[in-house]
Amino acid sequence: MEASTAVSAVIAAAREILGDRLSVNASVREQHSHGEDTTTPTLPDAVAFVETTEEVSRLLALCHQHGVPVTPFGAGTSLEGHVNPVRGGISLDLSTMKAVLEVNEEDMDCLIEPGVTRQELNTFLRDKGLFFPVDPGSHASLGGMCATRASGTNAVRYGTMREAVLGLEVVLADGRVIQTGGRTRKASNGYDLTRLFIGSEGTLGVITKVRLRLQGIPEATSAAVCQFQSLAAAVETVITVMQTGIPVARIELLDDDQMAACIKYSKLEGFAPIPTLFLEFHGTEAGVKEQAEAVEAIATEFGASGFTWATDAEARSRLWQARHDAYWAAIALKPGHRGITTDVCVPISRLTEAVLGAKKKSEESGLTSCIVGHVGDGNFHCLILFPENEPDGLERAWALDRAIVAEGLSLGGTCSGEHGVGLGKREFLEQEHGPEALAVMRSVKTAFDPRGILNPGKMFRN
Amino acid sequence: MEASTAVSAVIAAAREILGDRLSVNASVREQHSHGEDTTTPTLPDAVAFVETTEEVSRLLALCHQHGVPVTPFGAGTSLEGHVNPVRGGISLDLSTMKAVLEVNEEDMDCLIEPGVTRQELNTFLRDKGLFFPVDPGSHASLGGMCATRASGTNAVRYGTMREAVLGLEVVLADGRVIQTGGRTRKASNGYDLTRLFIGSEGTLGVITKVRLRLQGIPEATSAAVCQFQSLAAAVETVITVMQTGIPVARIELLDDDQMAACIKYSKLEGFAPIPTLFLEFHGTEAGVKEQAEAVEAIATEFGASGFTWATDAEARSRLWQARHDAYWAAIALKPGHRGITTDVCVPISRLTEAVLGAKKKSEESGLTSCIVGHVGDGNFHCLILFPENEPDGLERAWALDRAIVAEGLSLGGTCSGEHGVGLGKREFLEQEHGPEALAVMRSVKTAFDPRGILNPGKMFRN
Repeated sequence: MEASTAVSAVIAAAREILGDRLSVNASVREQHSHGEDTTTPTLPDAVAFVETTEEVSRLLALCHQHGVPVTPFGAGTSLEGHVNPVRGGISLDLSTMKAVLEVNEEDMDCLIEPGVTRQELNTFLRDKGLFFPVDPGSHASLGGMCATRASGTNAVRYGTMREAVLGLEVVLADGRVIQTGGRTRKASNGYDLTRLFIGSEGTLGVITKVRLRLQGIPEATSAAVCQFQSLAAAVETVITVMQTGIPVARIELLDDDQMAACIKYSKLEGFAPIPTLFLEFHGTEAGVKEQAEAVEAIATEFGASGFTWATDAEARSRLWQARHDAYWAAIALKPGHRGITTDVCVPISRLTEAVLGAKKKSEESGLTSCIVGHVGDGNFHCLILFPENEPDGLERAWALDRAIVAEGLSLGGTCSGEHGVGLGKREFLEQEHGPEALAVMRSVKTAFDPRGILNPGKMFRN
Repeated sequence: MEASTAVSAVIAAAREILGDRLSVNASVREQHSHGEDTTTPTLPDAVAFVETTEEVSRLLALCHQHGVPVTPFGAGTSLEGHVNPVRGGISLDLSTMKAVLEVNEEDMDCLIEPGVTRQELNTFLRDKGLFFPVDPGSHASLGGMCATRASGTNAVRYGTMREAVLGLEVVLADGRVIQTGGRTRKASNGYDLTRLFIGSEGTLGVITKVRLRLQGIPEATSAAVCQFQSLAAAVETVITVMQTGIPVARIELLDDDQMAACIKYSKLEGFAPIPTLFLEFHGTEAGVKEQAEAVEAIATEFGASGFTWATDAEARSRLWQARHDAYWAAIALKPGHRGITTDVCVPISRLTEAVLGAKKKSEESGLTSCIVGHVGDGNFHCLILFPENEPDGLERAWALDRAIVAEGLSLGGTCSGEHGVGLGKREFLEQEHGPEALAVMRSVKTAFDPRGILNPGKMFRN
């Protein structure tokens, strides 16, 4: 198909700005046609590899003028179709904007470009005694993590991107550049535009700089594993730990199927395929010991067995590697299968019900699913495995996904704890927020992007 | 002056809804003509004492239809003129909406009406082992605290209203009612409308319900005081404490003048009128002891003297009462004087410079000012005392206030850490955010309140 006149005009003008960093190469376009999701890929008309805010600004002004869609692209790790340019146009690749512009050790903040990944940032920070805690499972870019309000295993202690971002530089739809937030830890100085862009999924503006709050590397870290006869006992343990105010850094749940997969895949010895909590403690030597002992006492009350410690770095790293590989462990359970993952988050008191409900629905569907959960936050992922070669496999998996989300919503939860709405969760938004609140969101979208060029088709249906 | 036809129509219709809870009584209107600020009071045309969301909705629909201003009023403790109905119309008093609708102990959240004050909530929660940490100096209502993105002495550990609110019920300008956020600890499910209303100062909607995150009452609490020969040494101590990751619950600075005032007013014995840190630690018995010892070691390195402990509840309460009475202590220094207070917040590395700069400017102005600071957050208040009976007293105080804010901005800070913009800080907003970001804020305002009836005249000039 020929590109439209408008798209051709943008491509020609963009080539003047970017030279050969404006690509219409087929394989480049293919790489930018999808993320790590299962939506049907769509080719962008061109891919723009931008290097400066000014380039982004000039490009957006062009697209705004011609009404051409722009889909921001970071590391391409989205699970919900965010980077799929469903209406064609320009894929705006920010992955080479990788400068760490400032690190202020005294204030524990830094200013970075959006293409920096969390691992790159932490490598950069290592010798400064600081780290950035938000850790989604993938090698995501920090711009993308802002756009999807990402979190991960450390969120129970350190919060999500909502709490971690002090300020942003954003290019608006028409090319104007604004600064939001600032360098202070708090402020009451007008509308919280920073939080409005966090989680806006590229639909309100393009993030070109990010100022992040950092954390001091704790003096001591230890990890532990404990196992339970029932999922309810594991969750009750977590609820009690949270109420007691023990500042666990990580508290992750693996259900029996997921634990069986991990034992097999990561060769975890000495563990049973039963509901399991992985824990990590940050603090002083004494504090970490005290935290772990307090959790052990609570877990024992709820019938935990096998409270296993891992204080040395190597044992800890093996354990958390196994947790991080949970997705691959699950996939390896069923050769010839692919997976989609739910992202339901519920009030923690409803978590047992939500997880058991998800298991029951999985069994009824005839599909296998494995569950891992950021249980301190009430967020769990049900990795639904479906046979790749059966024509209705993906459809059956989505039907199960929908049923699990519907139950999550009925328990006072949300369809997405950390992956975002993208394409995959649009259908739940009205039910979750109500038509009036959704109308308000649409009016915000219109105020920021009157021509609808920014990541069109995402978050809202039509 | 006669009320306009539009106002008369609203008053007549509102009386149908509210009966004698719609008041045009002169003393009631006078009470609603100002907060705890020094702006020139303006009488509203009428005061509406609302009791339900539906009443708020019907009233706003009326005011929207007739183009009549609505100024929300909670406990009336604003320091920046937020509740001063500068364009007349209706003062919407939500102070009798005081129900605690839900407390979910397992999830550590609650749902309340906006008129509940933080003290009332904490009294209600006391026997549940939970507390709400955000503690501005005054007996503020939680609706007002949402609207101004309030914080206080505990923010360094527990965050501000930005972090404490899970969701809101909001009545929009035209009377539509929306729910924002939800019951989960995190979500990535569309635009963060909750954070947009937090700090919107009544200009985008009227908050009629608030869902708050609560905290577990710590097993142990202790307090300490340490004194320094220089302000710089006190601030360096705080920077090191923060970098070390010691989870102090409170870390408050009083400068020499403020300390002198507090010693005199609160009869604090054994302290010198020099820069002083008040600290509080929350945790386990052992953890609290360890935190305090770690802070003492750091403070000693920076030359602190007189590290005084207060572990028993009575001594602690006496200490923090003195801190809370700092304002009155300062006022008592100079009979016949009133005070205005700055609310500058800077990156913590610039705090010494900001505070010393404020002191120098005070001395040059010939006015006395006392400084207290939420120093872990870089936020400090300079209470500027001015002679009540001198015609240019207030004007001189404002000139000093402006100079202190200007310096705060030049140090990468904000004009307001926690009091909000209201009337008093409007002039700084463009300088702080830049014209483009301010234009974006205005476009948000227009999208939410196209007829400009919600708290007009606040936050933006014109």
